Amino acid sequence: MWYQHLFAGRTGRIQDNSIREILKVVGRPGMISLAGGVPSPESFPLDIIQELCGSVIEKFGPSALQYDVTEGFRPLREALAHYLAEKQVATAPEEIITASGSQGVLDAVGKVLISKGDRVAVEAPTYLGAISAFNPYEPRYVGLESDDEGLVPESLEKVLGEGRVKFIYLVPTFQNPTGRTIPLDRRKRIAGILQAHGALLVEDDPYSDLRYRGETIPPIKSLAPDHVVYIGTLSKILAPGLRTGFCVAPGPIREWLVRVKQGTDLHTGTFAQAISAEYLAGGYFKRHLPRIQSIYRPRQTAMLKAMEDHFPGSFEWPRPEGGMFIWAEGPAGLDTEEVYHEALRRNVAFVPGKYFYASGKDGKATMRLNFTMSTETDIEKAIRILGEVLTSFQDRISEPADD
Amino acid sequence: MWYQHLFAGRTGRIQDNSIREILKVVGRPGMISLAGGVPSPESFPLDIIQELCGSVIEKFGPSALQYDVTEGFRPLREALAHYLAEKQVATAPEEIITASGSQGVLDAVGKVLISKGDRVAVEAPTYLGAISAFNPYEPRYVGLESDDEGLVPESLEKVLGEGRVKFIYLVPTFQNPTGRTIPLDRRKRIAGILQAHGALLVEDDPYSDLRYRGETIPPIKSLAPDHVVYIGTLSKILAPGLRTGFCVAPGPIREWLVRVKQGTDLHTGTFAQAISAEYLAGGYFKRHLPRIQSIYRPRQTAMLKAMEDHFPGSFEWPRPEGGMFIWAEGPAGLDTEEVYHEALRRNVAFVPGKYFYASGKDGKATMRLNFTMSTETDIEKAIRILGEVLTSFQDRISEPADD
Repeated sequence: MWYQHLFAGRTGRIQDNSIREILKVVGRPGMISLAGGVPSPESFPLDIIQELCGSVIEKFGPSALQYDVTEGFRPLREALAHYLAEKQVATAPEEIITASGSQGVLDAVGKVLISKGDRVAVEAPTYLGAISAFNPYEPRYVGLESDDEGLVPESLEKVLGEGRVKFIYLVPTFQNPTGRTIPLDRRKRIAGILQAHGALLVEDDPYSDLRYRGETIPPIKSLAPDHVVYIGTLSKILAPGLRTGFCVAPGPIREWLVRVKQGTDLHTGTFAQAISAEYLAGGYFKRHLPRIQSIYRPRQTAMLKAMEDHFPGSFEWPRPEGGMFIWAEGPAGLDTEEVYHEALRRNVAFVPGKYFYASGKDGKATMRLNFTMSTETDIEKAIRILGEVLTSFQDRISEPADD
Repeated sequence: MWYQHLFAGRTGRIQDNSIREILKVVGRPGMISLAGGVPSPESFPLDIIQELCGSVIEKFGPSALQYDVTEGFRPLREALAHYLAEKQVATAPEEIITASGSQGVLDAVGKVLISKGDRVAVEAPTYLGAISAFNPYEPRYVGLESDDEGLVPESLEKVLGEGRVKFIYLVPTFQNPTGRTIPLDRRKRIAGILQAHGALLVEDDPYSDLRYRGETIPPIKSLAPDHVVYIGTLSKILAPGLRTGFCVAPGPIREWLVRVKQGTDLHTGTFAQAISAEYLAGGYFKRHLPRIQSIYRPRQTAMLKAMEDHFPGSFEWPRPEGGMFIWAEGPAGLDTEEVYHEALRRNVAFVPGKYFYASGKDGKATMRLNFTMSTETDIEKAIRILGEVLTSFQDRISEPADD
């Protein structure tokens, strides 16, 4: 049978996530992968999860396994309201919607807000999963400028002045891929710009609990609540395989997100939500989070130290206080895709930074390095090898080509 | 802040599922609800699920809680291949995609196949969840005629002859809402028509394991594999709160379904898939299914018997050999929405059949009666009351109005 004529027009915009393709080749034995973007399996509280499986069946009975309302499992929404209050996001359980990971919220946001050709403003570079979620709804992307403190407010002001933008998508804390965090004073300026322009921000916040040093910074949601759809997830602080994400959105948008989600998956998995609810409400999260931080903190320190020791002087990178990634930028003329292939031959993997640009053209000299999945020893070894590879490439760039 | 200008054009096609709205009002004390469409909580194998939570953590370790590939958790796909072979659907694990319930497949099918204005053929009446899944992609629906043996093949032939149809959506076994099953000879004719027209069928099969009498009938997928996207779910044979659905689709369509699902939710919940895998592969399903059937069989029998005893002679209904519903049709002129309100006053709820018609105009004299959620005693009582209400309405219809 011939199928090509059956596909919808939007499939032209849907691609494989290139990074997931990259990740498929880095699993071979002996490889040290700094390419991943996933939490360490050591961070999963397997004993707690096993205990909670029994206690949620005892506590909630069959309702932990039945169909549930689209908005989300009530005890989880209650627990999330407390969790969010500690992040200075004041919200009632009724204002929270749970979803199949933060990806489920991103899809619903795209479905509710994007008509074909609408402008959506994103950081350059930005989180690729958001682009995969939005693409089927056929937006046009407008790139926002960033510096070491994340989004440059003047760039936002300029883009909003140039015409209607359906929404702005940001990861303000320990961004994926750059690890950058927008400081509080800049968040206040961004909140003011949103209010002045009547604009909507989609604030994706998967990493803020993974802080290893420094002071917590409140989300932009807490500064301009009517202007922000705030997205969170338990993927990094419990386990991604439970697919528990959530959002807090202004009333009219929230109502549409619920209607849309009903068609997408009826509701988020009840059992996983029940486990998540008990994890938060039963005090397990508070006890387990320091353990997760204590796994990642030394890994991040080891990576930053090794980069100081081994990366060529022409490279720059921010020193984030948390998250899962270090972002490095080399000299103009470097193509980290070539570096990637050479590094793979020496059993080290990372993700070339260009994959994180919606434009598909920028970021050729950049690279994303993940530190959550490897031990300090492996990180030191991988960065040393990568430093050697980068030095050899740098030498090639600085020598004029003679053919 | 003003939000109205931010919504996408497609939101005009997205509505609340009316039945979910109806279900919200039927939970009051003393009410016997025949309105639901959900499995009985007594059918959930809570003890097995609790046991499996421990054994999957032991067996699969942290990978049962980690991110996973979009296609689905490998051990579940292997178990499903065996499960499907017993339904005469010959398939390899690589050909199966898991999803967040069958609803997750329906959404992905819509996203991959429907461009605005495309024709999609559905039974009248049809499953409402499919309409909610497809609506955001803005199809036009073409109604297919059904009789007591389900879809009338001549009607399919006619619709396919009138112009391109992106796909046909059917629930061939114990359909929701009618309980009807298409017999084998008619399935063969439908398969032949699909092949002759190069047409694609989306075959939704959530109920075929809930057979209380008679012989199993193979899915249309087994008769024309290249022409069918087959959708299944564990919601009725394990528990809906795990949200484990799946599909088997022809290669080119399957590849697009995976790409699309990556943007929608990255992947289906790993932990729930691991539990589902062990439930099927460990022999638990084979042992538990007869118990589920033994809960529902007497309830269906009680409902059919009570309808014989108490429903007015002007009513007709099929006698399905399984499923969750009985569908009754009254005389022309009856409006079961009015019956619904009178029945509610007498503490009996059901769903007026008109909600299951994509047209929004037909089926005024029909009603859907669910028998999975009530005991035999309650079913007998509810049907007796409903019989009295229907008789009073019938008397009003047959008396000419005198004002």
